[in-house]
Amino acid sequence: MGGKVFFSVTMSLDGFIAPAEVPVEDLFGPARKPDDPGVRRWMAQWSELHQATFPQRFFRENLKLGKGGEEGRDNEIARATHERIGANVMGRRMFDAGELAWPEEAPFHTPVFVVTHTKRDPWERPGGTTFHFVTEGIEAALDQARAAAGDRDVRVSGGGETILQYLNAGLIDEFTITLSPVLFGAGTRLFEGVDADRIALEPARTEPAPRVTYLTYAVHNRQPHA
Amino acid sequence: MGGKVFFSVTMSLDGFIAPAEVPVEDLFGPARKPDDPGVRRWMAQWSELHQATFPQRFFRENLKLGKGGEEGRDNEIARATHERIGANVMGRRMFDAGELAWPEEAPFHTPVFVVTHTKRDPWERPGGTTFHFVTEGIEAALDQARAAAGDRDVRVSGGGETILQYLNAGLIDEFTITLSPVLFGAGTRLFEGVDADRIALEPARTEPAPRVTYLTYAVHNRQPHA
Repeated sequence: MGGKVFFSVTMSLDGFIAPAEVPVEDLFGPARKPDDPGVRRWMAQWSELHQATFPQRFFRENLKLGKGGEEGRDNEIARATHERIGANVMGRRMFDAGELAWPEEAPFHTPVFVVTHTKRDPWERPGGTTFHFVTEGIEAALDQARAAAGDRDVRVSGGGETILQYLNAGLIDEFTITLSPVLFGAGTRLFEGVDADRIALEPARTEPAPRVTYLTYAVHNRQPHA
Repeated sequence: MGGKVFFSVTMSLDGFIAPAEVPVEDLFGPARKPDDPGVRRWMAQWSELHQATFPQRFFRENLKLGKGGEEGRDNEIARATHERIGANVMGRRMFDAGELAWPEEAPFHTPVFVVTHTKRDPWERPGGTTFHFVTEGIEAALDQARAAAGDRDVRVSGGGETILQYLNAGLIDEFTITLSPVLFGAGTRLFEGVDADRIALEPARTEPAPRVTYLTYAVHNRQPHA
């Protein structure tokens, strides 16, 4: 018996996990356009969404953004979330964006299983992150992640579409929403297309922090409403 | 200087305050269809959304659903919310539904200002609720509610469209979301059409309860992002 399968994302109060879409090459990597008004707006909204995460010491060190940072409860939560993970699963779009955005020492420090249609050899990064490209679907990727994680937990890292596929397939044990006090009005909704007749939630833990609220739910199968 | 203008609603984790729409006459009043599958589904989702409210003693007594009920913290919160209100404002659609659903002793016990296009004489109910029909728009209705409330607070009761009109007009001082551990996938979204460039939120209070989380935010005007 291995660990849990979970996801953990930051969501706006109106249900978005990313602002209205901007081409990823405009945001990250060598061709980024930091002065473009749409990019500035996206970055401002993204920073506001993650206002409790980006200043944390753990986050800054893990992303190679420099030393220092806050060391209170938000930092403890970020570190504890990282430390429970034995393997990550992610979708190809998140990987493609991350390949532009992450430092050379990618911030996972575990095996990462990328759900994709394109075969590719494993890609080993310094610091313990190795990306494995799985072309046999979400269940195969999760099976491989479970085996790699042993007794530790598997995190479905993102993006939103991949998380929803796992949730709707009944493969998520629990999840944590970092609920951020912002309203986007448009963007990528976390729960767009959720199979509401299948998923029942049970509140597991709620932890208020000064800027955000950490909400953890256990996921169960439900009986149909009618 | 009078009280605050606030709203307080129960929202699903995916942002809905009501299930996918069903004709209101099918739900409430003499022509209701309790055995219709769509109605049964709506009622089941509605009950699950309000799982922390409907069993409370205050709620049951106020809606004339019978004596008894829970008397813990959820009940205190429901009672305290009611007691701070000096006047209510609501939209015509909420009034129309309530006219079918509320008991003769309507559950407000204050003046209620209904934003409508149809002139109608004030309608006095036993127990201190008088409905006033305001045809001059949302600001006029709020002005009248403020005058009636004196030093107490004004609640914008609903429905969702009316709440959003007040929020986008910058007329809300604070609001409370009772966040319920359900996913609807479809229905009436609270924040659909919010003016994200105008509204900034500041967390004021978070109170976890066993079934739901009470999240209170102060509303400020914001500077544009770009």
